[in-house]
Amino acid sequence: MTVLAKTTTELSSESVRSLYDQLVVRLKELNHLQGISGLLAEGVRAEQLSTLAGLTHGVGTSPVLGSILEEFERRQAAQDLSNELNPYELANVRLSRKAYKEGVALPSELVKAAAALSSRSVGAWANARKESNFAKFAPFLEEQIKTIRETVRYQMKAGLCEEARKINEKARATLNLREGDDCYKGYYQALLNEYESGFKEERLQVLFSDLKQNLVPLIAKIKAKNFQHDNSYIKGDWDLEKQTAYSHRISKEIGFDTDAGRLDVSTHPFTGGAHPTDVRMTTRYTVDNLQEGITGTIHETGHSLYEQGRNQEYVDLPVSQALSLGVHESQSLLWERMVGLSKPFWTYALPLLKEQFQEPSHENLQSVTPDQFYNAFNRVEPGFIRIEADEVTYPLHIVLRYEIEKALVEGDITVAEVPGLWNAKMKEYLGMEVTEDRLGCLQDTHWAVGLIGYFPTYTLGSIYAVQIFNAAKEAIPNLDEHLAKGEFHVLKKWLNENIHQQGSLRESGDDLIFNLTGKTLDSSIYVQYLTDKYTKIYDL
Amino acid sequence: MTVLAKTTTELSSESVRSLYDQLVVRLKELNHLQGISGLLAEGVRAEQLSTLAGLTHGVGTSPVLGSILEEFERRQAAQDLSNELNPYELANVRLSRKAYKEGVALPSELVKAAAALSSRSVGAWANARKESNFAKFAPFLEEQIKTIRETVRYQMKAGLCEEARKINEKARATLNLREGDDCYKGYYQALLNEYESGFKEERLQVLFSDLKQNLVPLIAKIKAKNFQHDNSYIKGDWDLEKQTAYSHRISKEIGFDTDAGRLDVSTHPFTGGAHPTDVRMTTRYTVDNLQEGITGTIHETGHSLYEQGRNQEYVDLPVSQALSLGVHESQSLLWERMVGLSKPFWTYALPLLKEQFQEPSHENLQSVTPDQFYNAFNRVEPGFIRIEADEVTYPLHIVLRYEIEKALVEGDITVAEVPGLWNAKMKEYLGMEVTEDRLGCLQDTHWAVGLIGYFPTYTLGSIYAVQIFNAAKEAIPNLDEHLAKGEFHVLKKWLNENIHQQGSLRESGDDLIFNLTGKTLDSSIYVQYLTDKYTKIYDL
Repeated sequence: MTVLAKTTTELSSESVRSLYDQLVVRLKELNHLQGISGLLAEGVRAEQLSTLAGLTHGVGTSPVLGSILEEFERRQAAQDLSNELNPYELANVRLSRKAYKEGVALPSELVKAAAALSSRSVGAWANARKESNFAKFAPFLEEQIKTIRETVRYQMKAGLCEEARKINEKARATLNLREGDDCYKGYYQALLNEYESGFKEERLQVLFSDLKQNLVPLIAKIKAKNFQHDNSYIKGDWDLEKQTAYSHRISKEIGFDTDAGRLDVSTHPFTGGAHPTDVRMTTRYTVDNLQEGITGTIHETGHSLYEQGRNQEYVDLPVSQALSLGVHESQSLLWERMVGLSKPFWTYALPLLKEQFQEPSHENLQSVTPDQFYNAFNRVEPGFIRIEADEVTYPLHIVLRYEIEKALVEGDITVAEVPGLWNAKMKEYLGMEVTEDRLGCLQDTHWAVGLIGYFPTYTLGSIYAVQIFNAAKEAIPNLDEHLAKGEFHVLKKWLNENIHQQGSLRESGDDLIFNLTGKTLDSSIYVQYLTDKYTKIYDL
Repeated sequence: MTVLAKTTTELSSESVRSLYDQLVVRLKELNHLQGISGLLAEGVRAEQLSTLAGLTHGVGTSPVLGSILEEFERRQAAQDLSNELNPYELANVRLSRKAYKEGVALPSELVKAAAALSSRSVGAWANARKESNFAKFAPFLEEQIKTIRETVRYQMKAGLCEEARKINEKARATLNLREGDDCYKGYYQALLNEYESGFKEERLQVLFSDLKQNLVPLIAKIKAKNFQHDNSYIKGDWDLEKQTAYSHRISKEIGFDTDAGRLDVSTHPFTGGAHPTDVRMTTRYTVDNLQEGITGTIHETGHSLYEQGRNQEYVDLPVSQALSLGVHESQSLLWERMVGLSKPFWTYALPLLKEQFQEPSHENLQSVTPDQFYNAFNRVEPGFIRIEADEVTYPLHIVLRYEIEKALVEGDITVAEVPGLWNAKMKEYLGMEVTEDRLGCLQDTHWAVGLIGYFPTYTLGSIYAVQIFNAAKEAIPNLDEHLAKGEFHVLKKWLNENIHQQGSLRESGDDLIFNLTGKTLDSSIYVQYLTDKYTKIYDL
């Protein structure tokens, strides 16, 4: 594997096309390696993950790749390459340069240590959650925060995350800090951009404060009605095989290509697989609640359609990758909420459900109307668990996590303060008294993995979803009628063209939807959507 | 990951201990990577495997590793290092030097191409077998033979496999070949040594011809009796959950540590996992035959005890690895045959079986005696399928494969001739008429993976098993009585000490058993064992 880098002189005499071809070879190799860690079966050891991470980092920062990218930088400084490379190819150059710079900014030892830490830390978290004992997880979270700060420090030093650096500098000036004094202000900005490229935290603050301001009273209003829609006919004892058959059918009709992927069952539903032709998604079924299996399956189907719909021409290359986590989540949420929680959808899907479950024990399902069913599936009820939350309360779960993880990483609170703060905010935002950390700050695996700055993308995704769906409705005549007839392919095709195949062509999610809708991400559209919808459902 | 190699001068001033410590770091890293491919989930792509293989090869042939090993070579030429390194450490140096030399002999591109070919070829084989259509697999086998020959050619050129080179040279002289003429004589010797280190093919020929000469008449004699032991009470409809419970119980009582591994179900039973503390074995249960699940589980338990019993002090290092495939197989076969097919074992295990299956439908099981059960489990019956064969006919399945794969790789037959030759030999050795390639030359996956020279190790394993078990009987007073009481730990402990923990300390399987028994591998002991046992069972 020892390939000697060509000298600058050698590279400078090559054509842009030849340079690009060499780049593609390197990028594909890197992509294959990156895909491998996702395919590792349970039981992989921390040392193995660490070695693999170190090697992948080595390939992603190899001198050969470096000199090709440098030559591109020289060429682009001298001339516009858009006559020689198409926009997808130019995006590959841009994205790989960015990734390379991020890679070389970090010492291999740190990358390896971080991978090993994540692996150990997830184990500790799982035990701590089982025993509902935060103290057992605390030292690992402490260690994660340290490692994450060290990573950001290296990135800033390398001149990456300029936005974060500016915030940090300003804070240092304000606080009158000396060189060498610790100051972690701006670190959250850097972390956020790992998951949502190009998104400014100050915009996040505006969006989230708008959500908090509008959703807390909306939830209160719903609560004040002291009324709940009947959903007794989706409770009871639901045969798991029939649930499976129904979910597989719906997922296939929506457009999941079973020749290019599969749907299985797991405790924590997810969508994975390293390739558009081999997408693995999982769901879970609950015996006594019909809703969970159905909405979970539709959600993962949304993710899968994105994965299966990625640009095949540039497969294994950065431009074909999903643009951001927020945009990925928008695809799952668009199908789960805009479609799967809509009246047109249930006009189509309820008869099939009645056909599937004809047991006498589910007799009361047979007389339900799509309107009643719509109301039952859209019940708003504050709860402890994020992944079980409805679309009105969900954003507050995220705002809470954002506020805590930002304070943690920027040094405003200590790890020991997390449970108390969590419980106080749950009380304030959702009126819930957390009695066990298992149901509170130990419920999610993200911090254990080292994912800080990730949670906000769930809510960015839900805002994207509404705006993208609005654009689809404008673009597709009679979309509701199509959905009511189960003609999902029109929507899928539109998303394929306008979202999935675009991959990482645009520089940010904002760019993508601005181009599509004339607006960047806008919480007021989301608040409007929720207010309109739930005012009707709860007759507010 | 770019670590610059120290210069020869720098290394030459370091202590042996410091050199060894540096070697250990490299070897562990390599071991982690090697373990990864075994943990990859189904669905990994040929390109990914190829990239990973290339990288692992790169790490295994890195200049850093090379200069440390060279320095060891210089030191060992000058002085005996056994005052400074213990025998296990010296074995690590020896084994890693060998692996390094084998690695650098091969170009990375060839290693990558071979990995990709195996992945594609297995897919083609699975389809061909399903359709029982050899022609669909033939081009892939052709390609495998070419790749394998190329690999051997590189190894010979690098001065490895001296034994093979000598054979080749002699053949060239005899055939009066000119430089550049193709000649693949000796290639099988080189391949055999990949799986059974240090074993000469001429000894294999002697052992196998002895087996053929003795077993063909023994099988004929049994057949001529025209008598078969009743095994009706192990046929019928066996509850899978109860089979599972029974097999788990037996495997645990034998000594499988469920805290350091697990037993699951798969179509093709195997034992894997990259670490003594995480051993994954699988078995399969058949509804209408009780024997398959039980013997399969005991077989894999034998492999697992080897894996779990490996030397923990030198974990992740070459000396802790299994010595050879033959020795590994000896551990599964020792438990499956010497124990699981013995009277003492069934004296213990039959009452438990009766306790497990008390249904009226299995009433006739309740009155069976251990002697009757022993006869039923030891029925000899020629069949098409190797993995279903009994211990008397099994070696002939191997001899047949050996003869064909040797002829193939050394150029004495073409790929197209394989099915015809297979069927003729099945007729000759076992009296069976193969009507479908699915039941003939397409039944095994080995050639598709590129494993040629592997099959003989199954039969070497069965000979080792008998000799090792004889040694255990001499060393452990009243072993049969222990087994009849279910006290398996005495045997397990003896194997732990004398086989498992020895790992790759010795240079070959012959060394290991010579040291243990005063004899090298000896087919006459195996023939004697079979003849004695089956003369009694069939009253010959």
